[in-house]
Amino acid sequence: MGTFADLLPGLKWPVLQAPMAGAHDEALAIAVARAGGLGALPCAMAPAETVRAQAAAFRESAPGAPLNLNFFCHESPAPDAGAVAAWRARLQPYYDAFGATGGDGPGAGRAPFDAALCALVEAIRPEIVSFHFGLPDDGLLARVKAAGALVISSATTPDEARFLAAKGCDAIIAQGAEAGGHRGMFLTREPAAQIGTMALVPLVADATGLPVIAAGGIADARGVAAARALGASAVQVGTGYLFTPEARISALHRAALEAGGLSAITNVFTGRPARGLINRIVRELGPIAPDAPPFPLAPATLAPLRAAAEKAGSSDFTPLWAGQGAGLCRARSAAELTALLGRAAAGG
Amino acid sequence: MGTFADLLPGLKWPVLQAPMAGAHDEALAIAVARAGGLGALPCAMAPAETVRAQAAAFRESAPGAPLNLNFFCHESPAPDAGAVAAWRARLQPYYDAFGATGGDGPGAGRAPFDAALCALVEAIRPEIVSFHFGLPDDGLLARVKAAGALVISSATTPDEARFLAAKGCDAIIAQGAEAGGHRGMFLTREPAAQIGTMALVPLVADATGLPVIAAGGIADARGVAAARALGASAVQVGTGYLFTPEARISALHRAALEAGGLSAITNVFTGRPARGLINRIVRELGPIAPDAPPFPLAPATLAPLRAAAEKAGSSDFTPLWAGQGAGLCRARSAAELTALLGRAAAGG
Repeated sequence: MGTFADLLPGLKWPVLQAPMAGAHDEALAIAVARAGGLGALPCAMAPAETVRAQAAAFRESAPGAPLNLNFFCHESPAPDAGAVAAWRARLQPYYDAFGATGGDGPGAGRAPFDAALCALVEAIRPEIVSFHFGLPDDGLLARVKAAGALVISSATTPDEARFLAAKGCDAIIAQGAEAGGHRGMFLTREPAAQIGTMALVPLVADATGLPVIAAGGIADARGVAAARALGASAVQVGTGYLFTPEARISALHRAALEAGGLSAITNVFTGRPARGLINRIVRELGPIAPDAPPFPLAPATLAPLRAAAEKAGSSDFTPLWAGQGAGLCRARSAAELTALLGRAAAGG
Repeated sequence: MGTFADLLPGLKWPVLQAPMAGAHDEALAIAVARAGGLGALPCAMAPAETVRAQAAAFRESAPGAPLNLNFFCHESPAPDAGAVAAWRARLQPYYDAFGATGGDGPGAGRAPFDAALCALVEAIRPEIVSFHFGLPDDGLLARVKAAGALVISSATTPDEARFLAAKGCDAIIAQGAEAGGHRGMFLTREPAAQIGTMALVPLVADATGLPVIAAGGIADARGVAAARALGASAVQVGTGYLFTPEARISALHRAALEAGGLSAITNVFTGRPARGLINRIVRELGPIAPDAPPFPLAPATLAPLRAAAEKAGSSDFTPLWAGQGAGLCRARSAAELTALLGRAAAGG
């Protein structure tokens, strides 16, 4: 079995900074890249012009470093005014309590990978393109590969890993259930059946023979060493980077991460299962609400309430994305964290 | 931080066979002990006389080997005929389909640790007593310790680990969410917040400083090496031992394990969250049914249906306990598995 380092010999450490849409910009990717890790730009929520500018800044500030662009490839749901209105009605008591209004317009804001975004890849020519929620159609995938990018995506089950391998992925992210943010699940729909990193990494390694990038619950040198023992040749770390000054998260999110607490996989924020700290909305409407509007329609319905609550100093309705390793994380710079993880990945 | 081996210097390998009530008898414990691991007898469902006879057989067949007795220490719920009747009514269509009758009597069969069982410990004098669902009251715990037993219990969160440490446990089982069978959870009630092994082991190690026994998703040498990297000094393995000829599980259970598939934490079988393969009842009534009768009342309500279905060759209503590492397990003898895990635990 090849390793991730074989694929990308220019990379100093096999440490991937998880792209976290809405939680950072190019500053984090640059800091990680300059420290020897793989910097990533989340492109699911940013306008193309923003991505273009961020990539240019990355190339200028981290010359020669490989770049990872990340895209979502969900299917956009049909508009469903009824589901949105029903969900909005469930939120009404909270809207009333915070004196919020609105939230009844159509949802938007998370674009699936398409021809326009593919053209962006062809212009930027990132060394790696990562997808979440499966893969785009074969034609787009071929264009990404023709642009010279390695392609990786997240598997949450052995079946998903086999699917990604058959489609030509160069490596597989084994996204264990501990991971924060959106579950990459795309062939299975049952969040309760998501598999922990300890079991998923060797299952994925056995299922595909491709290089495996372990994700989920990896927060310090111990997790990196464990991932290697399980058969991964690289790690992807998200929550740890939320504790760095380079992360662009709210003070409320940062305070919640530092306070700790339990997290759950919930669909109440976006309509798709994603792991975040258990706050009021997760406790009272979730963690999995069968009636949440389909991704990505849910956030718009919640947005005014979330804004009003945050203005009042409350994170009751804020997605507090976090992996289960949050309690292992410490405030440190992205460079420090990358070096710490990198040394462990190198067996040090 | 001391290691588990420091506590039990007579043990060859720091490999604990998980006690699995209903899934094995002393033959498995003896085979594990003779191969150098820690054999365990589950005592929650067996009459005292059976435990006494099993322990005697163990002492005779594995002379000098340490013995682990395991007990549940749940609080017995008040009888709740209404909840049982309502759950029984939900099962009626299945009862009809299989021509089954009954299942409306009171539940029983899983005794919490009490003075009588404590007297059994004092008579048998096991080297280790493990508890699930917390700990018994301080008086009983003191008697167990006075009988010369090391005491261990399962933690599923850092708070539970701190509780167990404060009560005087000698080591903590960090039971990651991947583990098969009953969750040991006792301070938290939310199965969706259970923590994966990759994050839980270092969290528990940091929280207590006690020796940590890693459990959940550990099925082969890779998992054992990973557990060590995370800071565990021992592992507890259950599902792997279900694949041995020494396990006393039904042909249906064995076939389901070998066929693989996804599992979930469900309360539909016993009233308490436990991980098993997703079969019809889990899919249709679970995985978590808010109206399942409290543990241990649920199994009696299901028993006649389960028996009728099994007689018809169906495991639709059978608890198919399995951890998420089941897909990594292979049919082998308990001695072979113990040696394989033991060599990895010793760093080989």
